[in-house]
Amino acid sequence: MESRRAEAFSDGVFAIAITLLVLDLRLPPAHGHTLTYLLVNDWPQYFAYVVSFLTIGIMWMNHHTILAHITRVDRPLLVINLLLLMGVVAIPFPTSLVAEELRHTGGVAATVTYGLVMIAVSFGFAGLWIYVVTHAERLGGQAQPEALRRSIPGFTGGLLVYVAGTLVAAFGAPLAALVIYGVLAVYYLFEHLPSPSTDPGQP
Amino acid sequence: MESRRAEAFSDGVFAIAITLLVLDLRLPPAHGHTLTYLLVNDWPQYFAYVVSFLTIGIMWMNHHTILAHITRVDRPLLVINLLLLMGVVAIPFPTSLVAEELRHTGGVAATVTYGLVMIAVSFGFAGLWIYVVTHAERLGGQAQPEALRRSIPGFTGGLLVYVAGTLVAAFGAPLAALVIYGVLAVYYLFEHLPSPSTDPGQP
Amino acid sequence: MESRRAEAFSDGVFAIAITLLVLDLRLPPAHGHTLTYLLVNDWPQYFAYVVSFLTIGIMWMNHHTILAHITRVDRPLLVINLLLLMGVVAIPFPTSLVAEELRHTGGVAATVTYGLVMIAVSFGFAGLWIYVVTHAERLGGQAQPEALRRSIPGFTGGLLVYVAGTLVAAFGAPLAALVIYGVLAVYYLFEHLPSPSTDPGQP
Amino acid sequence: MESRRAEAFSDGVFAIAITLLVLDLRLPPAHGHTLTYLLVNDWPQYFAYVVSFLTIGIMWMNHHTILAHITRVDRPLLVINLLLLMGVVAIPFPTSLVAEELRHTGGVAATVTYGLVMIAVSFGFAGLWIYVVTHAERLGGQAQPEALRRSIPGFTGGLLVYVAGTLVAAFGAPLAALVIYGVLAVYYLFEHLPSPSTDPGQP
Repeated sequence: MESRRAEAFSDGVFAIAITLLVLDLRLPPAHGHTLTYLLVNDWPQYFAYVVSFLTIGIMWMNHHTILAHITRVDRPLLVINLLLLMGVVAIPFPTSLVAEELRHTGGVAATVTYGLVMIAVSFGFAGLWIYVVTHAERLGGQAQPEALRRSIPGFTGGLLVYVAGTLVAAFGAPLAALVIYGVLAVYYLFEHLPSPSTDPGQP
Repeated sequence: MESRRAEAFSDGVFAIAITLLVLDLRLPPAHGHTLTYLLVNDWPQYFAYVVSFLTIGIMWMNHHTILAHITRVDRPLLVINLLLLMGVVAIPFPTSLVAEELRHTGGVAATVTYGLVMIAVSFGFAGLWIYVVTHAERLGGQAQPEALRRSIPGFTGGLLVYVAGTLVAAFGAPLAALVIYGVLAVYYLFEHLPSPSTDPGQP
Repeated sequence: MESRRAEAFSDGVFAIAITLLVLDLRLPPAHGHTLTYLLVNDWPQYFAYVVSFLTIGIMWMNHHTILAHITRVDRPLLVINLLLLMGVVAIPFPTSLVAEELRHTGGVAATVTYGLVMIAVSFGFAGLWIYVVTHAERLGGQAQPEALRRSIPGFTGGLLVYVAGTLVAAFGAPLAALVIYGVLAVYYLFEHLPSPSTDPGQP
Repeated sequence: MESRRAEAFSDGVFAIAITLLVLDLRLPPAHGHTLTYLLVNDWPQYFAYVVSFLTIGIMWMNHHTILAHITRVDRPLLVINLLLLMGVVAIPFPTSLVAEELRHTGGVAATVTYGLVMIAVSFGFAGLWIYVVTHAERLGGQAQPEALRRSIPGFTGGLLVYVAGTLVAAFGAPLAALVIYGVLAVYYLFEHLPSPSTDPGQP
């Protein structure tokens, strides 16, 4: 099977998950407050929107980069991809929790759930990447053991930071956890996986 | 007509239906409960999310496989495809029912509705597959009577299991029905339709 | 500009509009009623779902057929297409009204609104079709004045039936109006626009 | 990387954002009012729907035109595109505010928020366009310094009108601001960016 339809389906899922984030933006009734008060006071929902939007957008870019290594897909890859997308699609859920609960109930449950979803997605990406690199020739790409080895620090680092953020949230500092998630998103805007054309391990 | 736009439209519908599932994930107010209590106590909605996500994802894969046999579409195929998609798009509805009602009202209505939708979708897939195989040459593919014959047990089996699950639900065991639906989803992760390239019936 | 991206955008809009219809399916709390009672008693929402799903699906097929006549798009066509899509995207709104109000408030407002949206969409399709046929050569197609002439009865007939249904609804027979809309959807499953390859007006 | 998947992802996001606008259309309970009263009285939500639909549709056309200048994308372009889409996806939020609040609370907060989102999106489009033109050769296009220079008045004008509308809203005339946004949308239906094929600066 060509990878074209798998890409189209994945693109659609990423595009919808990122767009559903807007459904959680709400402006509470004014109750005599000024506009400035409302916009400033409701910052957690805007912050959560920005962090999740950047995070899903970066995940889409990385998904793009990974699938650019191959031209065909097989059943195991489709199943791994489906499990990965199951995590991506879930992201609006903890984002909604953060937007709703950060000010009202402290947000521990929300930010821990956020971190757990991110950890699951990180494992999904690691699985997809490992499968693509180790089955590259079968999938119409080129074997790149070097690319896999060089990408280990980035994957492990991202995963460890999400684990750290989740622990920080679980021990009662949800705001600090949210900042950690945000910083990681900005960091990944610059950091990226080896792409097929720039990979020095490819002849 | 080329099958490209029909695939793009179907991919979009599958991608949206699978993503709308996240709209049913909700965390009830804490009310003094611990995070662990809430996450454990709300398992039906997470279980329903996973089962429906896997089910729609597998349906997308099978749709992919069926349309890979042909290169053109005609009006009857588009109508059959539309009826099939009408069932797929409805899946978030019984999923939402299961997520909401399994703990509160026992979930009989929810799991029966779930099963009825799955039975309808199974008939839709059977119709699409029969039409594609019996009109393959007209649609730019190759006649494969053997492929049709070999796929009968898989289709019939899946349909019978959904009928069994629906009856189990209707007779008052919604949890057992949900487990049956979940096991069927996992089973289909491995089982699949004959693909055009690996079909021994094709010269 | 090539018509590829305009098709992709339109496909996405059709796919999302058709999928959002599921958000209006709701099962009210049982309140001691049997499952059979609930499913039978709530038929308007299922009927509205089926009618709107078929209607949007058929519109997508017709859109597909119209754009298959050309290979390029220009600014006026994109604007006409946008106005058409503005009507298509609105369809879940009157569908939701029908689902909610047919039993409670009689449904006159709902079915009149439904008819008005369909009339607007009919004008949009007529505009798109006229523009495509009259500018076919500029858009990379072939001039087909005959195709335009032959399609006039179908367009006019559909429009008149929607006007009739809207008037029937406005004069207090919403159920009859809904049946008229449903019959028209089923009729259009078979009836279709001339396609580029089967058009006898094309040399 | 080819620009194909970036276009597909962007098309999906635009298509979903424009379709989510329908979720804000609501018909309040009749309470003995006539249909005419309800439809006339609720005009702000229909007006907001039309203005936002046209605005997002035009943005999609302009996005289409900008990316038609190039055939490849790089990481900075993907990040700029992501920031732009973050603004586009947010548009249903202030649209919903306008639909809900224009009659009840005067709508100052809603129309100011609307204007702020539009200003952010305008900056996003300016950034994407400047990057595309200044990096055209690297991205598989042709250097067009003339195209950039000629597009400055259009970009600056649109931005200034959105700033003016936002100020008008902030100083207590939300209806006037909404009319300004609507007029700008209609104006942009005709006005457009230089396209690759009609650009006199291209040899």
